[in-house]
Amino acid sequence: LPAQLVAALRGSIDEGAMRPGEPLPATRVVAARLGVSRGTVVTAYEQLIAEGYLASGQGRGTIVNPGLGRVHGTTRVHGDGRVHGARTDAHAATASADAAQSGRSAHPGAGGSPRAPRPGVASSLTDTIERPAWRAAWREAATHAHETPPVLGSPKLRGEIAEHLRRMRGTHRAAEDILVTAGARDGLGLLLTALGTTRGRSLVVGVEDPGYPSLRGVAARHGARVVALQTDAEGLVTDALPRGILDLVIVTPSHQHPVGAALPLRRRRELIAWARDSGAIVVEDDYDSELRYTGTPVPALAALDDPHDGVVVTLGSFSATVTPALAAGYLLAPASLRVHLEPVRAELGNPVSSIVQSALARVLASGEIRRHTARMRRRYAARRGLVTAVLGAVATARVRPMHGGLHAVIEIEPGTAAGRSPAAAGSAEASLVRACQRAGIGAVGLHEYWQRRGVAAGRPGLVIGMGGPDEAAFQRALDELAGLITAAGPTADGAPA
Amino acid sequence: LPAQLVAALRGSIDEGAMRPGEPLPATRVVAARLGVSRGTVVTAYEQLIAEGYLASGQGRGTIVNPGLGRVHGTTRVHGDGRVHGARTDAHAATASADAAQSGRSAHPGAGGSPRAPRPGVASSLTDTIERPAWRAAWREAATHAHETPPVLGSPKLRGEIAEHLRRMRGTHRAAEDILVTAGARDGLGLLLTALGTTRGRSLVVGVEDPGYPSLRGVAARHGARVVALQTDAEGLVTDALPRGILDLVIVTPSHQHPVGAALPLRRRRELIAWARDSGAIVVEDDYDSELRYTGTPVPALAALDDPHDGVVVTLGSFSATVTPALAAGYLLAPASLRVHLEPVRAELGNPVSSIVQSALARVLASGEIRRHTARMRRRYAARRGLVTAVLGAVATARVRPMHGGLHAVIEIEPGTAAGRSPAAAGSAEASLVRACQRAGIGAVGLHEYWQRRGVAAGRPGLVIGMGGPDEAAFQRALDELAGLITAAGPTADGAPA
Repeated sequence: LPAQLVAALRGSIDEGAMRPGEPLPATRVVAARLGVSRGTVVTAYEQLIAEGYLASGQGRGTIVNPGLGRVHGTTRVHGDGRVHGARTDAHAATASADAAQSGRSAHPGAGGSPRAPRPGVASSLTDTIERPAWRAAWREAATHAHETPPVLGSPKLRGEIAEHLRRMRGTHRAAEDILVTAGARDGLGLLLTALGTTRGRSLVVGVEDPGYPSLRGVAARHGARVVALQTDAEGLVTDALPRGILDLVIVTPSHQHPVGAALPLRRRRELIAWARDSGAIVVEDDYDSELRYTGTPVPALAALDDPHDGVVVTLGSFSATVTPALAAGYLLAPASLRVHLEPVRAELGNPVSSIVQSALARVLASGEIRRHTARMRRRYAARRGLVTAVLGAVATARVRPMHGGLHAVIEIEPGTAAGRSPAAAGSAEASLVRACQRAGIGAVGLHEYWQRRGVAAGRPGLVIGMGGPDEAAFQRALDELAGLITAAGPTADGAPA
Repeated sequence: LPAQLVAALRGSIDEGAMRPGEPLPATRVVAARLGVSRGTVVTAYEQLIAEGYLASGQGRGTIVNPGLGRVHGTTRVHGDGRVHGARTDAHAATASADAAQSGRSAHPGAGGSPRAPRPGVASSLTDTIERPAWRAAWREAATHAHETPPVLGSPKLRGEIAEHLRRMRGTHRAAEDILVTAGARDGLGLLLTALGTTRGRSLVVGVEDPGYPSLRGVAARHGARVVALQTDAEGLVTDALPRGILDLVIVTPSHQHPVGAALPLRRRRELIAWARDSGAIVVEDDYDSELRYTGTPVPALAALDDPHDGVVVTLGSFSATVTPALAAGYLLAPASLRVHLEPVRAELGNPVSSIVQSALARVLASGEIRRHTARMRRRYAARRGLVTAVLGAVATARVRPMHGGLHAVIEIEPGTAAGRSPAAAGSAEASLVRACQRAGIGAVGLHEYWQRRGVAAGRPGLVIGMGGPDEAAFQRALDELAGLITAAGPTADGAPA
């Protein structure tokens, strides 16, 4: 029911039946008119606020986001209704797009789990998925091991992924638009290799700063020049995108890493328009967006793109929703880009075992992944509460607001005047990370997420994972972490403890 | 027992106790002295002849290969004892190393099975491996799906592969020297990406001409310039290797594609010495070498290399010995090269599912792959007999001698005087390939294997696979192929039929 209401409202706004700034009826009025609970309407409004369709100002009710439609305008819309916590501007990057050295290996957790830094416990999610459907899928897949699937992926799996994305990510694409990959990094490697052949020169790739370093590392390893792009509390600052320089931008529109913002609708449209104008490709890193806590996930950026002649390539995987042990994911591309990718994939080969493809197709068809995702959303919501309760009680720690995702961001009060200098703040963060490592807690320093290392761009802090099957172990790790942050000081009088 | 004798003789020759040109005792003398059957000694001598340690001239008994030891000499050793069939010089490339256009997509069977072209039947080998050990391996692997393995591969699988290569390929390397890959193409992509970062410019890659196009296609897609290298009936002509140009050469020393020769020991040593002198890396494409019909397989080139400071990277997969559905393989590299590969792998991620790694490690540990390989050797030997019998009876077809491998090479008599021109020969081959396609027979034209397309370098011909579980279907496809070749002419008077 909330999904139907969301779709209807989104349609009205898209078609212009509701105009930017127009007030929406109060939730109780809508609920009475439709004969649904008021909670249903509240959920739908919240979802559309998260997507940027609606805005809720202070005391002025819910309105259609006034920023919609001004795709190339210079007006900056503040207060567009998205609920940001305090202190987000501590993380707003101020420098404009800036060439940065490539080839760095800034890879939190390099050598281990590629995504989720973790507070001392494994980040696997298969503890609840090892059910009859899972075992049956592998049993069947192993007995059908005779054939190499087509290089773009097994038709059955491509169809199941298209359907999965339709339900979970709001895209309406055919199976042919899906390429099976070994994960987001494999998909990006394929895209860069194909573009390198087409464009015949070194590529220039823009990345969010701060942002998750994994994909920018892949770009650097493929010989691309990596350029840092400005972000603020809403994610990528689209009206600061440089023109004529970038071949590709990598963005996390559903859940910016590590800050957690969903890119508002107005910026999404600006981004696509910018890419069309400047001949660039937008890579949508769709990691963990299915695991938002509230409402259905924000639709993928690709849902706004043209399926035939579009500019958005979506990369995703089943690492977060199933298990990283699968090493399987997908690439969603419009037809105009697929023609460049398909011959390259044929020549490089598809790295995903057809046994894995067959098992994953069966698990998807069983509906078990959707049910599992719903369970995981509840689990992460509970853990968010735990993190806020335990670390929020530490005087020198500030838990950033979390709307979704598999990790939490903890800012650390640098304390003394000396500690407030960028160098001292970095050093304090590094000490704390080392203390965590000694305690077996896999926290990663917040500065690892910045492309421009020299810039004193943010507060010191830690990023911790929220995975691991064992609630008791998770709570113990949090308690230990709270002790380490407390021990790192500062004392009440501002001197180091 | 033959293996012990092979090892003892190899040792004596390596240590200089037996000198080049020195005659060996007659097989019956050795058999009597050791108390073994004469067949055991014959098998051992044949194996060492295939490796290039021994030579058997016409009527002069078996001698130590006179070509051994002259690593940089210019003397060309002919009649070194390796039994070549008639007409091998029809395929000897005459042009020297020659820059060729890169970026071509010459990929026999592109979009389908990456390696074995096939006469109308699937090339899967899992029909006999679907046994209790296989099913149990997958059942166990699926219930241990909690963890992402280390990016270089699961320690258990790396150990099992090292042991497998020790037994099957004569290498003595530690588990640490093995990286788990999704197959040979994945391994080459990793190596090229790492070298590109290290050397900081476009790479130049030498390939055998003719040779299997798969890996040269990968090199071209990674932006390398691909250079054709001269081959003759013994494989790569090592004393014609250019100096100072090549970053990497890709060779098939155990079984040259598609001709089938094993590179003689003298050339193996020359190749390694050349690579050391010129700072190049030798990529050993070890495809299908486990499936030789006679004796144990020729040891890998890597067995001659230095494990710490070497120059040889061996790429292999379990596609031929297990099933292409696995999409799993390995890269074997000396420590000096591994240090460049490991950080790149960490950043790009390992594409092989840990469930696949776990299942493969279990299957390897069970011994089932070795038993399966022995069965496959017998099957392919029988099919070689079938191909020779059926197609050898066609007046215009010549079956090239086969010592191993998964495919057969059929040369086609071009027939009329016009048909003997390179253009007409190419056109006749293309017509025949199209006729096969219409009949559902997956034959590939022999010209596809040449890097230099314009060069009239060989006869027209077909490469056919010998996979497929069903003997009856295989025989039917052969019969049909014989009919197509016959129908393609020429007639007895030299005019097209």
